Amino acid sequence: MIGTPTGSDAGLLSPVWAGTPVHAATSDDAWLGAMLEVEVALARVQARLGVIPASAVPVIESVARPERFDLGELAVQAREAANPVVPLVSTLTSLVAAENPAAADHVHRGCTSQDVLDTATMLVARRALAELESCLDRCAVALASLAEQHRETPTAGRTLTQHAVPTTFGLKAAGWLAGVGEARRRVHRLRTQGLPVSIGGAGGTAAAYAAYAREATGTDLVAELVEATAAELGLAVQVLPWHTQRVPLADLGWVLSIVAGTLGKFAVDVQVLCRTEVGEAVEPGPAGRGASSAMPQKRNPVLSTLIVAAARQVAPAAGVLAQCMLAEDERPAGAWHAEWQPLRDGLRAAGGAAHTAAELAEGLTVFPDRMLENLHRTGGAIVAERVNVALAPALGKARAKQVLARIAAEAAAGHGAFDELLAAAPELRESNADDLSEAAVRELLTPQNYLGAASLFVQRALDEYGPPA
Amino acid sequence: MIGTPTGSDAGLLSPVWAGTPVHAATSDDAWLGAMLEVEVALARVQARLGVIPASAVPVIESVARPERFDLGELAVQAREAANPVVPLVSTLTSLVAAENPAAADHVHRGCTSQDVLDTATMLVARRALAELESCLDRCAVALASLAEQHRETPTAGRTLTQHAVPTTFGLKAAGWLAGVGEARRRVHRLRTQGLPVSIGGAGGTAAAYAAYAREATGTDLVAELVEATAAELGLAVQVLPWHTQRVPLADLGWVLSIVAGTLGKFAVDVQVLCRTEVGEAVEPGPAGRGASSAMPQKRNPVLSTLIVAAARQVAPAAGVLAQCMLAEDERPAGAWHAEWQPLRDGLRAAGGAAHTAAELAEGLTVFPDRMLENLHRTGGAIVAERVNVALAPALGKARAKQVLARIAAEAAAGHGAFDELLAAAPELRESNADDLSEAAVRELLTPQNYLGAASLFVQRALDEYGPPA
Amino acid sequence: MIGTPTGSDAGLLSPVWAGTPVHAATSDDAWLGAMLEVEVALARVQARLGVIPASAVPVIESVARPERFDLGELAVQAREAANPVVPLVSTLTSLVAAENPAAADHVHRGCTSQDVLDTATMLVARRALAELESCLDRCAVALASLAEQHRETPTAGRTLTQHAVPTTFGLKAAGWLAGVGEARRRVHRLRTQGLPVSIGGAGGTAAAYAAYAREATGTDLVAELVEATAAELGLAVQVLPWHTQRVPLADLGWVLSIVAGTLGKFAVDVQVLCRTEVGEAVEPGPAGRGASSAMPQKRNPVLSTLIVAAARQVAPAAGVLAQCMLAEDERPAGAWHAEWQPLRDGLRAAGGAAHTAAELAEGLTVFPDRMLENLHRTGGAIVAERVNVALAPALGKARAKQVLARIAAEAAAGHGAFDELLAAAPELRESNADDLSEAAVRELLTPQNYLGAASLFVQRALDEYGPPA
Amino acid sequence: MIGTPTGSDAGLLSPVWAGTPVHAATSDDAWLGAMLEVEVALARVQARLGVIPASAVPVIESVARPERFDLGELAVQAREAANPVVPLVSTLTSLVAAENPAAADHVHRGCTSQDVLDTATMLVARRALAELESCLDRCAVALASLAEQHRETPTAGRTLTQHAVPTTFGLKAAGWLAGVGEARRRVHRLRTQGLPVSIGGAGGTAAAYAAYAREATGTDLVAELVEATAAELGLAVQVLPWHTQRVPLADLGWVLSIVAGTLGKFAVDVQVLCRTEVGEAVEPGPAGRGASSAMPQKRNPVLSTLIVAAARQVAPAAGVLAQCMLAEDERPAGAWHAEWQPLRDGLRAAGGAAHTAAELAEGLTVFPDRMLENLHRTGGAIVAERVNVALAPALGKARAKQVLARIAAEAAAGHGAFDELLAAAPELRESNADDLSEAAVRELLTPQNYLGAASLFVQRALDEYGPPA
Repeated sequence: MIGTPTGSDAGLLSPVWAGTPVHAATSDDAWLGAMLEVEVALARVQARLGVIPASAVPVIESVARPERFDLGELAVQAREAANPVVPLVSTLTSLVAAENPAAADHVHRGCTSQDVLDTATMLVARRALAELESCLDRCAVALASLAEQHRETPTAGRTLTQHAVPTTFGLKAAGWLAGVGEARRRVHRLRTQGLPVSIGGAGGTAAAYAAYAREATGTDLVAELVEATAAELGLAVQVLPWHTQRVPLADLGWVLSIVAGTLGKFAVDVQVLCRTEVGEAVEPGPAGRGASSAMPQKRNPVLSTLIVAAARQVAPAAGVLAQCMLAEDERPAGAWHAEWQPLRDGLRAAGGAAHTAAELAEGLTVFPDRMLENLHRTGGAIVAERVNVALAPALGKARAKQVLARIAAEAAAGHGAFDELLAAAPELRESNADDLSEAAVRELLTPQNYLGAASLFVQRALDEYGPPA
Repeated sequence: MIGTPTGSDAGLLSPVWAGTPVHAATSDDAWLGAMLEVEVALARVQARLGVIPASAVPVIESVARPERFDLGELAVQAREAANPVVPLVSTLTSLVAAENPAAADHVHRGCTSQDVLDTATMLVARRALAELESCLDRCAVALASLAEQHRETPTAGRTLTQHAVPTTFGLKAAGWLAGVGEARRRVHRLRTQGLPVSIGGAGGTAAAYAAYAREATGTDLVAELVEATAAELGLAVQVLPWHTQRVPLADLGWVLSIVAGTLGKFAVDVQVLCRTEVGEAVEPGPAGRGASSAMPQKRNPVLSTLIVAAARQVAPAAGVLAQCMLAEDERPAGAWHAEWQPLRDGLRAAGGAAHTAAELAEGLTVFPDRMLENLHRTGGAIVAERVNVALAPALGKARAKQVLARIAAEAAAGHGAFDELLAAAPELRESNADDLSEAAVRELLTPQNYLGAASLFVQRALDEYGPPA
Repeated sequence: MIGTPTGSDAGLLSPVWAGTPVHAATSDDAWLGAMLEVEVALARVQARLGVIPASAVPVIESVARPERFDLGELAVQAREAANPVVPLVSTLTSLVAAENPAAADHVHRGCTSQDVLDTATMLVARRALAELESCLDRCAVALASLAEQHRETPTAGRTLTQHAVPTTFGLKAAGWLAGVGEARRRVHRLRTQGLPVSIGGAGGTAAAYAAYAREATGTDLVAELVEATAAELGLAVQVLPWHTQRVPLADLGWVLSIVAGTLGKFAVDVQVLCRTEVGEAVEPGPAGRGASSAMPQKRNPVLSTLIVAAARQVAPAAGVLAQCMLAEDERPAGAWHAEWQPLRDGLRAAGGAAHTAAELAEGLTVFPDRMLENLHRTGGAIVAERVNVALAPALGKARAKQVLARIAAEAAAGHGAFDELLAAAPELRESNADDLSEAAVRELLTPQNYLGAASLFVQRALDEYGPPA
Repeated sequence: MIGTPTGSDAGLLSPVWAGTPVHAATSDDAWLGAMLEVEVALARVQARLGVIPASAVPVIESVARPERFDLGELAVQAREAANPVVPLVSTLTSLVAAENPAAADHVHRGCTSQDVLDTATMLVARRALAELESCLDRCAVALASLAEQHRETPTAGRTLTQHAVPTTFGLKAAGWLAGVGEARRRVHRLRTQGLPVSIGGAGGTAAAYAAYAREATGTDLVAELVEATAAELGLAVQVLPWHTQRVPLADLGWVLSIVAGTLGKFAVDVQVLCRTEVGEAVEPGPAGRGASSAMPQKRNPVLSTLIVAAARQVAPAAGVLAQCMLAEDERPAGAWHAEWQPLRDGLRAAGGAAHTAAELAEGLTVFPDRMLENLHRTGGAIVAERVNVALAPALGKARAKQVLARIAAEAAAGHGAFDELLAAAPELRESNADDLSEAAVRELLTPQNYLGAASLFVQRALDEYGPPA
C-alpha cells in the first residue's frame, strides 16, 4: 500500500518561494546533501583524531553524494525508523562496503540518527538564513533610499483606517526600514552564533563516540570531537547535547516569525497604498505582472499579496517548534519528528517573503501628487489636532477639542467643508484671536506644516539601520 | 534569480505520509489534474447549456492532461499572478489554439482563477478524505475487535501518571474506538455534504458567465451552471459564491484536527503502554521496524511516534485556515493565498496519521499478564477508593479517606506493603467489622473485582461506533 | 509567597466583551456556580435513585451557593490539587457537615474532580452559546434587511485591493448573512446536541458510583445515573466517559473559530468601507463613540476594530483545545488543565464579537451615492471584463483582453480616461462594429448594467439563511 | 445590555498562577496603575522641559492613583473607543480639574492612547519579567545543585520511550539547567534592554508633543522628551515610534515561549520519573498536596502538571503577538487591540510556570536505588551499544549489531535474559575472544561503566549556566 512517491512537489501552491533560492536550499535534496556532509565531516574529524583510519575517509567522501541515493525510497524507508537517517546510513554503509569493505565499519561511528539530522538541519538553516539575510540587506538598501528620498514628502497618516494627522512617506519607509533592520540583526546573530553542531550519541552521553575513541586512542576525545566537527562544518560549538533542549529550534522559529511579521507589515501597508481609492503606490513589474485570468484592466499588487500570505503561515509553524520543546526523556517520541516539516515551511515562507520583499522595495513606485491630493481630502480635518493645540490657550484644550469635534461631525454629515465651517465658527471670534487671523487659520490648516518630528525620526532610522555608505 | 525548481520533495521530512495514498492524492500533480478537470467540466457544462459550441469540448478534453504541463514552470510563473491558475489557463489556451484556434476562445469562459482553484481544492480534498475515511474504517474494525476481545482484561487505570483504579484494556480500546467513530462521522459528513463547487466569476456576481450565456442563449443560466457543474464533478451545490466566505475551508481544518487529535490520543496511550517499565504492548512490525542507527536492542514504537508527530502539526495548520476567514472585499489579497499549503499539510498529516493508525490498530500486541503484574504493583493501593467505599459506613467517608491516605503514604515511604499496613490498621478493628474479615479485605483488594461499569461502557461503544456485523 | 489574589480582572484589556452578557456568563463566579449545580444535581439524582438518603439533598442545596465560597481562596488552594474541585468539595463538605454531619458523607458521592468540572464547563458553555446564538440571530435579521434593502444598490466589487467588477451592496450583505447563517447553525447544533454530561468516576469506569449504588440498592445504576443527571442538567447523554476523549472541547473550539471568522470577515469589510478614501459606510454610535484621545475629528470604526481584535484571538485558543486532545491514559497530567482558560478566552472573544457585531449590523449606515461615485472612479475600467465579452466575437477573447489591458495601462499611466481611450481605440473601428456604436459603448461602460447574478444570489441567501417572516 | 461587570476573575481556572506574584503584577489594577504612572511621568518630564508649568505636576500626581478609578466602569467605557486610555484620560482630566482647573489642560499633553498603553505595557512586562527571572534564578540554583550532587548517579537513558543507554541523573539535571540558563539569559536581556518607552503621538510624528513644546519653549524637544521619559520610567529609548513596528511585543512572546518550553521540558521529564511503574522521583509537597477528590492513595505530580498545562498555552499566545505584527497604516484597526490579552495570558502562564518550577526544582526528591533497579531491568540490553563496540573488532560493527538485535529480540520474546542469551551466543565463541571472557562480558554489561561523557557534560553545564559560588 506504500510505494515510492509518484507525485512530486514543485511549489505549485506556494508561489512566494517557488523557484527562489530558498526553495532549492531547503529541498529534500538539500537535506539529503547536508546529512551526507555530516557523515563525511564526522569521518574526517574522527580520522584526524585517530579514531578511524585515514584510509576510510576518501571512500566515504566518494560515495556520500546525493545522486547515489534515491530520495523517494529513502522517504518511504524512513517510515520503518520514524526518521530518514536510519535508511540513509544503511545505504551509505552498503555503498562504502561495495568500494571498500573495511571502511564500512567506520561510517557513522559512535553516532546516532539525531546527531546527523540535527546537525544537517543546522547546515540547511544556515544556508537558508544566509539567503534570507542577503534579501533583507537588499530591502534595507532600498528602503533607506526611499526614506531618504521622501523625507519631506507629505502624506496622510492613517490610524484605525481614518485620516489622522499628516506624516511623510519618508517616515513610513523609515518605519519599514527599522522593522527590517531589527529582523536582520536577529537573523545575523542567529546565523553566526546560534546554530550548533549536535554531538550526543544514542542517549546524550556520547558514550559510543568515547568508547570507539578510547579503544583507538586511549582517550575519550569527546570535547575534541565536538570542537573539531563544529569547526569542520562551520557551526557553533554546543555546550551540551541538545537532543531534548530545543532552544536552537525555538530561536529559529522566532527569528522567522520576526522576519515574516516585519515584511508582512511592509506588505499590508503597500496594499493600502495600492487600493484603487488611495492610489498612492504601484508595485513594480513587467507587463503581465498582476494580471487576472478574467479582468483585462487588473494590475494586482501580487508581490505584497504573496508576502502577506507567507507571513500568515510562519508564526503557526514557529508555534509548532515552540510546542516541540516539551520533549520528554533523552530523546522524545514525536516532539522531534514534528519539527522537521514546520521548520522547512517556515524557512521557505520567510525566505520567499524576503526575496519577494526585496523586489518590491527596490521597485516600488509612489505618487507624491496623489498623496498630496489625498492629504487635502478632508478639508483640513486631518490637522484638527494642530488646530486644537493652537486654540488651547484661548479656549482650553478640552473645550477646543469639543468645538473641533462638532465641526468635524458637521463636515462629515455633509454640511460644509471642515475649513469653511471652522472659519465660520463663532468660537474663533470669541477668543482673543490675534493669532487666529484668516491667514493664520490657513497656515494652520496646511497639512505640510504639521509634520512634527518626522524628519528627525527618518534620520534616526537611517543612522541606526541604514546601510553603510 | 528565479529558476525552475531543481530540488524536488519526496516526503523525506514527513515519513508519516511519504508514499502513502494521501501523498499522491495531494501532490502538485494531483492539484494540477484537478484544476484541469474543472476547466473540462466547465466546458462540458457550458456546451450542454448551449453557451459554447459542443465542438470545443473534445479538443479541450484532449489537451487538458497533466502531462502536457510543466509543473516547475507553472509554479514559477504563478509568482506573476500570485496564483497558478493564470499561467495554467494561458498554457491551456495555447495548447487548445494549437489544435483548434476557434476552440481557444471557449476555454475558461466567464471564469476566474479562484473558481478553478477552489473547485479543484474541493476535488483534491474529497479524494484525500475518502482515503482518510477508509483508514478510519480500518481503525474502527480493529479497535472494536480489541475492545470486544479484551472486554474483561483487567489493567491499571492511570490518572495524572499514577495508578488510579483498575479498568479493562477493553474499555481503553473502546475509548479509542469512540474517538475514531466521532472523527469518522465528521469526515463522512463533510466529504459527502460539505465540499461545494465554486462558481463566482471575477467578483462573485458570475457576471461574465451570465453575459456569455445571455449572448449565446438569451438567458443568464447561472443557477443552471452552478447545479450542472456541481453534478458533473460530484460536489455540493453552493448557496452563494464563497470566495470570501470560507466556512468550507475552516470546516476542513476542523475535521482534520479532530482526526489528528483522536488518533494522537490513541498514539500517546500506546507510547505509555510500550514504555520499558510498563511493557503492556508492542507495536506490530516486520524485522527492522523501529530500529535505531545506534542501539542494537531497540524496537522503538515508531508508528505511534509518527502519529504523534503528525498530530502536533495539524491544529496549527487548521488555525491558519480559520485565520484566513478574515478575507476582505470580494476577493482578498493574501488570505486566500495563505490557505493552500496549510490545507495540503493538514490533509497529508491527518491522512498519513490515519494510514499509520490503521496499521497500528490492526497489529497491536498486548500483554494481559504484564497488565496484571502491573495492576498488583501497588499492593492494593490501586483499589483504595473501593476500600474507602467499604469503610465509609463504619468510619464515615471522610475519615476512611484519611486513614487510607495515611496508609498509602506509609507504603510509599517504604514502611510496608499497602495491603499489609491496611490489614494491621487499628481503625479496621475499631469498626463493627463483620464485613471486614480478612477474607473480605482480600476480596476488596482484588483489582479485578473493582471494574465498575467498564463492560457496560465497552458495549455502548460497540453499539454506537462498532462496525456492522 | 502565594497569597489570596489582590488584583482582580474586570475586562480592562478586552473591551470587546467587558460588561457584555458573556462576561458574567463565563466569570469565575459562573464556573463556581456551575460546579455547585453539578454537585446538587448529583445529590438529587442519587437520592431519586435511592443511592443516598433524600434527607441529604436539602442541606446540600442550601449550602451549595456561590456566596458561601471565597473564590480567591479556592483559586489558590487549587494549586495543591491542580484543579479547583478538590478544595471546592472539601469546603462544601465542611459546610454541609456544619449543618448536618450525616449528610456530609453524601456529598460528591462516587464522583471525581473531572466529572464535576467537565460537566460544569458544559453548563457554562451552554449558557454562553445561548447568548452568542441570540446575538447571531440579531445579526441575521439586520443583515437580511440590509441585503433586501440594497439588493439593487450598485457598488464596486474589489479583489486583491483593486476595483474588479461592479456588484451590489445587497450581495455584500448577503455574503455576511450567509456566513452568519452557517455559524449560527453550528452553534445551535452544538448547543442543543453536542454538550454532554460527564460521568466517569476516578478512572472512567464509574466504579465508585456503582459501588455506592450497589451497596444501597443492590444494582449499579450507572446508565440510570448518566441519563438522569443529563436530564436534570439539560445536557446531552454521553456514550462513554470522555475524560480523555475530548471531541466536545475540540468541537467547541471549532464552532467558536467559525463564529469569530465569519464575524471577522464582516468587520474587515466594514473597515474597508469606512476608510477615509472609500467612505461608503460609517459605524453606528452615540456621540463620543470612536473618539480619539488626541484627534478631535476622529470617528474610528471601533466596533469592527473590536471584532477583528477578538477574531484574531479565537483560533489560537481553539488550537490549544485541539492540541489537548492528545490526553494520555485515563486522565492526563496537563492536557486537561490546559483547556480551561483557552476555552473561556474563546467563549468570551467570540461572544463579545457577536454582541458587538449585532450592534454593528443593526446600526450600520451606508452611502449609496458614495458607492456610485467610487464605482465611476476608473472611467469604466471596472467593466473592462464586460467590454471583453462584447468585443470577443469581433476580436477574439484573447486579443480583446490584450487591447483592453493596453488601454487600462495607458489610463493608469495618466494618458487619458479609460472610456475615452477606449472610444478612440483603432481596434473598435476595425471590427464589424454595428453593435459597438458610441451609444453601445456608453451602455457597456455603465457599471450598473453589469451586475450578473447578484440579485439571484441575494435571494438565495435570504431563502437559505433569512430569518422567518 | 452592557453593564458594569458583576463576575470577577480570581484565577479559578488557572491555578498555575493564581495568587503567585505574577498574578497581581499583571492584574487590571497593575495595568491601570502603570497607565497612571505613564501620565505622571509625562507630566513630570514635560514640566522639567518647560512645556507645562511645574505647578500642574503635584495635582496630577495626587489624583493619578488607581483607587480613584472604577476599573469596571473603565472597562465598559473602553468599548466606546476600543481602548481603555480614552476613558482613563477623560476621568483623570476631570479629577485634576476638580482640584485645579488650570492643571487639567496639562494632562496627557500631546499624547495619544497608544503611547500610554504601550508604555504601560512595557512597565507591566518589566515587573512580570523581573518576577520570572528571579524564579528562574531559583530554578538554576536548585538544578545546579541536583546536577552536582547526582553527577555520578547512574540512571536509564530513555529514547522514544525505550531504555536506550545509561546516563546519569546529574546529566538529566544539567540538561534542565542548560535550558533554564538559556531562557534566563533571554529574559534578562529583554528585560534590561528590549522594553522601550513609546512616544509617537497621534500618528507617529510626535507632532502635538512638538507643537506644545515649541509653543512653550520655542523648540520641539522631541528627542529630549523621549530620552527623559525613558529615563524617568526606567525603560529603553526607542529609535522610532513603534505603534506599528511591533518587534518588542513579538520578542516578548518569543521569550515567554522559550521559558514555557524549557520549563515544560523539565516538567514532562518529572512526570515520566513519577510514573507508578518508573518511581524514580516524587514531587515535594505538604500533606494533601496532589490529593484526589476520589482516591485516598493518590499523590499526583501536580506541580509538573501545572507547568505542562501552562506551557501548552504560551506558544499560541505568543503566536497572536507575532500575527499582530501585520499592523497596517500608522496605527492599526485591530492588530494592536488583539495583543493585550494574549500578552497578559503569556506573562501569567510563563510566570506561574516559573514560580511553580522553582518550587519543584527546590523540592524534588529522587530515588537513586530505584534508578539502579530500573537500569537493570533489561538484563543488560541497555548497554547493547557498548557490547556492539566491543564486538566490532572481532565481528565487524554491522554483524555485531545483527547478532545483538537477534539476542535482544529473543529476550523480548521471553526466551531468556539478555545477558544469559548473550553469554551463550555462539558468535562470542567464534571470535578471537581473549577480551570477551566471562568477566569481561560481565564488566561490559555493567550499566554504570558506560556513562560516556556524562560527567564532562555536567561540568560544562555548571561552568556555563551554574550560579556563581
